Amino acid sequence: MTRPSVVTAAMLAIGDELLSGRTKDKNIGHLADMLTMVGIDLREVRIVADDEEAIVEAVNALRGRYDHVFTSGGIGPTHDDITADAMSKAFGVACVHDPKAMHLLGAMYERRGMEFTEARKRMARMPVGADHIANPVSTAPGFRMGNVYVMAGVPQVFQAMLDGLLPSLETGTPVLSRTVRSPFGEGDIGTPLTEVQKHHPETNIGSYPKFDGKTFSTDIVIRGRDEAELAAAEADVIAMIEAISRSRQGG
Amino acid sequence: MTRPSVVTAAMLAIGDELLSGRTKDKNIGHLADMLTMVGIDLREVRIVADDEEAIVEAVNALRGRYDHVFTSGGIGPTHDDITADAMSKAFGVACVHDPKAMHLLGAMYERRGMEFTEARKRMARMPVGADHIANPVSTAPGFRMGNVYVMAGVPQVFQAMLDGLLPSLETGTPVLSRTVRSPFGEGDIGTPLTEVQKHHPETNIGSYPKFDGKTFSTDIVIRGRDEAELAAAEADVIAMIEAISRSRQGG
Repeated sequence: MTRPSVVTAAMLAIGDELLSGRTKDKNIGHLADMLTMVGIDLREVRIVADDEEAIVEAVNALRGRYDHVFTSGGIGPTHDDITADAMSKAFGVACVHDPKAMHLLGAMYERRGMEFTEARKRMARMPVGADHIANPVSTAPGFRMGNVYVMAGVPQVFQAMLDGLLPSLETGTPVLSRTVRSPFGEGDIGTPLTEVQKHHPETNIGSYPKFDGKTFSTDIVIRGRDEAELAAAEADVIAMIEAISRSRQGG
Repeated sequence: MTRPSVVTAAMLAIGDELLSGRTKDKNIGHLADMLTMVGIDLREVRIVADDEEAIVEAVNALRGRYDHVFTSGGIGPTHDDITADAMSKAFGVACVHDPKAMHLLGAMYERRGMEFTEARKRMARMPVGADHIANPVSTAPGFRMGNVYVMAGVPQVFQAMLDGLLPSLETGTPVLSRTVRSPFGEGDIGTPLTEVQKHHPETNIGSYPKFDGKTFSTDIVIRGRDEAELAAAEADVIAMIEAISRSRQGG
């Protein structure tokens, strides 16, 4: 087999409302699903407030460490939307009204007979040198600066931007997964499962307890980039559960 | 009025499954709600994988910066539960089978006629010097080490641990909030809202767009620790919306 390629990513979700509990984030889980599907490893997520210093520090930490950084939130027209300014500061460039975005937004508001207010013009601001990320839902574009993809916080818009963006990105060998349901709790399978993991070091075996209010069962998830290795590990996990079942019935 | 006291916190959610999309986190939003209620400011959240180095680095960064750090995940009985080891490393102490936890778990499994397996004994491991965080759901305790509170990832257990823990923590003056619904999008209210914010610097006015598939409306949320300042800002926001309504009807 060819050596699998690994492409890494982080997400930075921006917004006071995520930290106050007012808004329950929906973008992290969606991004995680999409990246897994295309073969990009999401390694870290941070949530920070609408605070310039916090955004700058987080984006600079993440963009140096991962291949891609995806951000959500803070690119609307109001005073608390400061993501464009923070990104400009992080990259050490000016934040300007992008001419192409001004044109795009100006034309849209004219078509709709709406005033292109100062507030709406804020949505055309981005760091000098940024490329647009198309917004098929509500026009105002996101932007790419280096390896950082700046997108909206409203889930419908975030998802539409991501759909357009993903096909253009460098991706790796997708991680495949198999799930085996165990009727036994983690305490029963923990020791033998450790042995299975040791025998299949190329796979990553995770164990996720489920609690129905009375008893625990477990989902065992085997992840890896090679189909044959995955199948071999899965067979051993199934054999392990059957052995526990037999010993229970026998005892 | 007396000066409001501010107590800060961060959360560290631990688990490969949160980053692969397999599990959609429920603990961050719950913690955010609970902390807001008791008067602790959640300032930052990080999600990292079941990776010792990543956990150690994140918890050390967060515990030095915030008054409290809450973690979720990685304290079960299987090989991928490495939070106790990582916390011990972060604090530079040994990770041991805590005698009190061994006793608690041993008695519980004996009562239930279940074997106290090596895997289950893993759940008694914690850094030397840690205090227990009670687990009324499934016995295996979380633990406190310094200003770090290590709790389970299963939401029912996380919530029960937090309920028991919160009354013992130092809290600050709770942040109060008022929400004003605006039928206008952010582009219409952005400029006047900036003025309202400037007149009420002791409050934090956030603006959250809602999209129904066709048009945007806005929830305007005013937050602050003083009731009178909050009421004054709210009155100005309502007056602002009424002024926009009048100008629309007049025009």
